[in-house]
Amino acid sequence: MKWTVPRLSYKLPPTIAQIPKSGRPGQEISVTGFIRSVRRQKRVSFAVISDGSNASGLQAVFANSSLVDNLTNGASARFSGKLVESPGKKQDLELAVDQVEVLGACDAATYPIQKQTLSVEHLRNNLHLRSRTTRTGAMLRMRSQLMKSMFLYFDSQGFQFTHTPILTSNDAEGAGETFSIADDPEEPFFGRPAHLTVSAQLHLEALMAGLSRVYTLSPCFRAEHSQTNRHLAEFWMLEAEWIDASREGVQGLCSLVEDSLKALAADIVAGEPFSALWDTHKDDTRRQAILACLDAAPWRRMTYSDAVEHLIASGVQFEHTPTWGSGLQSEHEKWLAEQFVAGPVFVTDYPKSLKPFYMMENDDGKTVACFDLLVPHVGELVGGSVREARPDVLKAKMEAAGVSGKEYEWYQQLREFGGAPHVGYGMGFERLVSWLSGIENVRECVAMPRWSGKMLL
Amino acid sequence: MKWTVPRLSYKLPPTIAQIPKSGRPGQEISVTGFIRSVRRQKRVSFAVISDGSNASGLQAVFANSSLVDNLTNGASARFSGKLVESPGKKQDLELAVDQVEVLGACDAATYPIQKQTLSVEHLRNNLHLRSRTTRTGAMLRMRSQLMKSMFLYFDSQGFQFTHTPILTSNDAEGAGETFSIADDPEEPFFGRPAHLTVSAQLHLEALMAGLSRVYTLSPCFRAEHSQTNRHLAEFWMLEAEWIDASREGVQGLCSLVEDSLKALAADIVAGEPFSALWDTHKDDTRRQAILACLDAAPWRRMTYSDAVEHLIASGVQFEHTPTWGSGLQSEHEKWLAEQFVAGPVFVTDYPKSLKPFYMMENDDGKTVACFDLLVPHVGELVGGSVREARPDVLKAKMEAAGVSGKEYEWYQQLREFGGAPHVGYGMGFERLVSWLSGIENVRECVAMPRWSGKMLL
Repeated sequence: MKWTVPRLSYKLPPTIAQIPKSGRPGQEISVTGFIRSVRRQKRVSFAVISDGSNASGLQAVFANSSLVDNLTNGASARFSGKLVESPGKKQDLELAVDQVEVLGACDAATYPIQKQTLSVEHLRNNLHLRSRTTRTGAMLRMRSQLMKSMFLYFDSQGFQFTHTPILTSNDAEGAGETFSIADDPEEPFFGRPAHLTVSAQLHLEALMAGLSRVYTLSPCFRAEHSQTNRHLAEFWMLEAEWIDASREGVQGLCSLVEDSLKALAADIVAGEPFSALWDTHKDDTRRQAILACLDAAPWRRMTYSDAVEHLIASGVQFEHTPTWGSGLQSEHEKWLAEQFVAGPVFVTDYPKSLKPFYMMENDDGKTVACFDLLVPHVGELVGGSVREARPDVLKAKMEAAGVSGKEYEWYQQLREFGGAPHVGYGMGFERLVSWLSGIENVRECVAMPRWSGKMLL
Repeated sequence: MKWTVPRLSYKLPPTIAQIPKSGRPGQEISVTGFIRSVRRQKRVSFAVISDGSNASGLQAVFANSSLVDNLTNGASARFSGKLVESPGKKQDLELAVDQVEVLGACDAATYPIQKQTLSVEHLRNNLHLRSRTTRTGAMLRMRSQLMKSMFLYFDSQGFQFTHTPILTSNDAEGAGETFSIADDPEEPFFGRPAHLTVSAQLHLEALMAGLSRVYTLSPCFRAEHSQTNRHLAEFWMLEAEWIDASREGVQGLCSLVEDSLKALAADIVAGEPFSALWDTHKDDTRRQAILACLDAAPWRRMTYSDAVEHLIASGVQFEHTPTWGSGLQSEHEKWLAEQFVAGPVFVTDYPKSLKPFYMMENDDGKTVACFDLLVPHVGELVGGSVREARPDVLKAKMEAAGVSGKEYEWYQQLREFGGAPHVGYGMGFERLVSWLSGIENVRECVAMPRWSGKMLL
């Protein structure tokens, strides 16, 4: 997917990533960045400068070695000179520097970003400078690239990007996992208790009533004391809802999810952050597995019932014995995606007892029209369903689930006043980043992670 | 600014807005939407169908009038038939319907979206169906279009889109306007008190330390009991920070803001939501004023000191007498943008006593290097400044402002470890929508507004 660049009347100087396009050998330019490394030699010195626009940075060459006297790792400076072809690599340009202006010094001894201190734990305690590391920088650029691809994809399918509220009266059915706003119970700020949203779905359904196809990427919050590498207390979720007049149901839903993920991943695979992140991996099998997903071949789909049968037939000694009617555990999802299918797999039609009230029941009376997309090394990446659109059926299900009452009348009215069959899904953005980047913990897939016990800055 | 459409292997049926491009007369198609109006005649009947993809909808013609028997305003249905040229308007297509499938009925008597009940107040109480009105639908499409244009613009300038945290330990200097999370004081969830962010700026500055040019569109929160048409308790803010190595300062900052707003507005003015919203206005002068802003001519810039002089010289009897050292009141901003300049105006270099600690002091010792952009009918749309980059000066200013201590060490470290001169700004997204749409109250510029005393859904 490509962008057409707008005409600009005010243009910032090129970033290091833009130089190969905008620069030519012999050109005089100035580049601003921070020092990644300095190599002092007798006759000529070198430095690698980064401005975070790519992972490789720019090599600066100093014929006058005294220019590097004040340069330390981490210092910011502006380098002026001439672009020259790199003697080693033909395609590359480097900067022959004849002037240096130090913008901000950096005490190398106390600088928190040192080669020998780049442990995950140390960087989690230095979030404010973590974006200076090549790995975090590439992850952040991958997020930005994903956002752009997401916009292009949904735009082409006729969706509108919408902003759903963060503060809501919906307490996610009192499941006890929501954050609430500290308030004066006598005189609440909004006249009623306010919670942080756990999902934009219900709100998106309301916007769909008017716009037919809507999506959002919104922060969501779960007050869970979970310490896994897949959970955050604050995370970003891509959610979409659209009218499914031809009742393609779960199969159409899976097709759009697969198509969109292939489009997004194709953009990512072609991009700089992807190679920056994967080139440092010793084992290339996971990268190859992602590339293989982009083939035209459709991803595997199986019902929950079939999945349970496969798990039982596997002969694997799981910690939790697979049984029809119980949720799939991480170990089960892992085996299905990594061993059995060795790729992404849609598991559809879960038992209704495992799923929330808004999912449409199948004709068998036992299962609901839903899916989870499992991918290797991440597990559940996407979850979605056909939404119950029949006003009477929904009302009965809500009453049975104990979520009825005046608070939810608006949700029922969406069906009573010209509702339509519709489907939707949600995808954890940090999990998507984890899958595509190979970064195993979602705490490293967002700039400033928050989880139980930890919230810096 | 243009999009290149990605190749899709799974394509949803065209929306009504997509029909003029993808459809041709004689083509058999199905269209899904809700009924805006039905006109029954003896020989032939008509209905206007909307799917929210544009304001005009699609005209459906029924040669067999019995097909409209079950159709009421608000009902959702799928209409199948043949595209034919509209006899009235040459360019338009209408649908000659030979089959109707009602997807969701609607009781016309109790349907909350009726022509005679579309008061602003009534719609605020029916947020869940408000997106079905032409005006709210167009506003939502305008937001979506703005998002796309924003991405294209900042991408071309080398910025990365970033996600800054919503939950933060930063209580905005204890100004008492932040929302806080309800917590167990003995055992806080994050180990420390958590607040909802009031601005992404400080966090963006940390990401800028690594990526040089960053921006975000993030929800922000203010626990203010304000009831004006320009304030919400939850709103979206576009914020950007970038390194300004050549020290262009406020002038460069204003240039980028102006350039980006002209690029965004040019896209909007060319789009369907803009005409949908403005075509209903009786007075065309405000629309003409927006079009005039897009001219190549630079927007007016003046210092705060000059602005105060102009206000005094105006002879206008303001409620608050303009005095150097006092903040500009709404009435002053209004006069400057609407009467004196009659267009957008950058007011720069405010007295330091009026502005926060992080703004860089000018050489005069009295003012800081900042600006507010005032636009007619909205007032302050954007505010930004050169950030204080000198570690020692910042530290002294923070101590004087009472925001020093361990909590803020990270912010000082951004300067101590290779900081660089940088600038940034923030723009309220709902105010931008208000300006471009002519919708006067920001409560109608977002899908589900929250303000003191009001939070539906």
